[in-house]
Amino acid sequence: MKLESLHDLFVEELEDLYSAEKLIIKALPKMIEKTSAADLKGALTEHLEETKVQVERLDQIFDQLGGDEVDRKGRKCKGVEGIIKENKNFLSEDAEPEVLDAGIIAGAQKIEHYEIAAYGTVRTYATLLGHNDWTQILEVTLEEEKQADKKLTQLAERINVQARAA
Amino acid sequence: MKLESLHDLFVEELEDLYSAEKLIIKALPKMIEKTSAADLKGALTEHLEETKVQVERLDQIFDQLGGDEVDRKGRKCKGVEGIIKENKNFLSEDAEPEVLDAGIIAGAQKIEHYEIAAYGTVRTYATLLGHNDWTQILEVTLEEEKQADKKLTQLAERINVQARAA
Repeated sequence: MKLESLHDLFVEELEDLYSAEKLIIKALPKMIEKTSAADLKGALTEHLEETKVQVERLDQIFDQLGGDEVDRKGRKCKGVEGIIKENKNFLSEDAEPEVLDAGIIAGAQKIEHYEIAAYGTVRTYATLLGHNDWTQILEVTLEEEKQADKKLTQLAERINVQARAA
Repeated sequence: MKLESLHDLFVEELEDLYSAEKLIIKALPKMIEKTSAADLKGALTEHLEETKVQVERLDQIFDQLGGDEVDRKGRKCKGVEGIIKENKNFLSEDAEPEVLDAGIIAGAQKIEHYEIAAYGTVRTYATLLGHNDWTQILEVTLEEEKQADKKLTQLAERINVQARAA
């Protein structure tokens, strides 16, 4: 199907994000399991719950777009798939627990940044397409991703120092 | 090899970034070729030249770390590999030129954000490891990535509007 306009690109980017969120929901439990620090474990677990709600927000927009236009399972997000592959490889390495935690933070922030870029884009598209309701929905998720990234930076302050001394 | 400390993780993340930069240098020409808007073409071309210098900056740090510790070709950055795969798939789609340009910006910003996350991490590690010289080197690249991302957002303001009307 030809991408005729920004609207078509918007739908494609949303489908990509939908796939991304599903991949993240599948990947986070393994990252949580391998984490030693209780506060990091807590932050990742909280973000897993947030991510499930983010999928529901995309579903809201898809429901309004209608079935003819949207294929929820039509795309696989190659970008997040690659970042998760990288994270998985890292989790299988032999590492001191503090170093593993530091690396888990680094990997999680790469995922967050992909989402910050992608949600920033679709939020802007929604506004240009005259859908302020969608802008607001997407803005909530974008804000959550930015906060999750900030939280990880805060946790890294202590965990990186511990990893240095490992 | 076991990751014993933050130092080991630092080296691994740098090797990952080295691979990322090399993949980006290979991928950008194709994106530039498919771009219609002259200013976007110019910005991507400029960033390609910047990226080549960013590799040299990593080489500077690797030279100081020494040959025993660093394997420049030891890693493949799966994250950026995935994002580039996504971009390549997009470039092969049938799209109006303005829509293609808008999508190229979106894809390039995903690459930028991966790098913003990764350079932010290694910059912080360098400081913790007591290497303010490396912090400064990595900070220069981090700032370039942030500026490249901002420039793309600016260009998107006009290009997205054109894509809407396509």
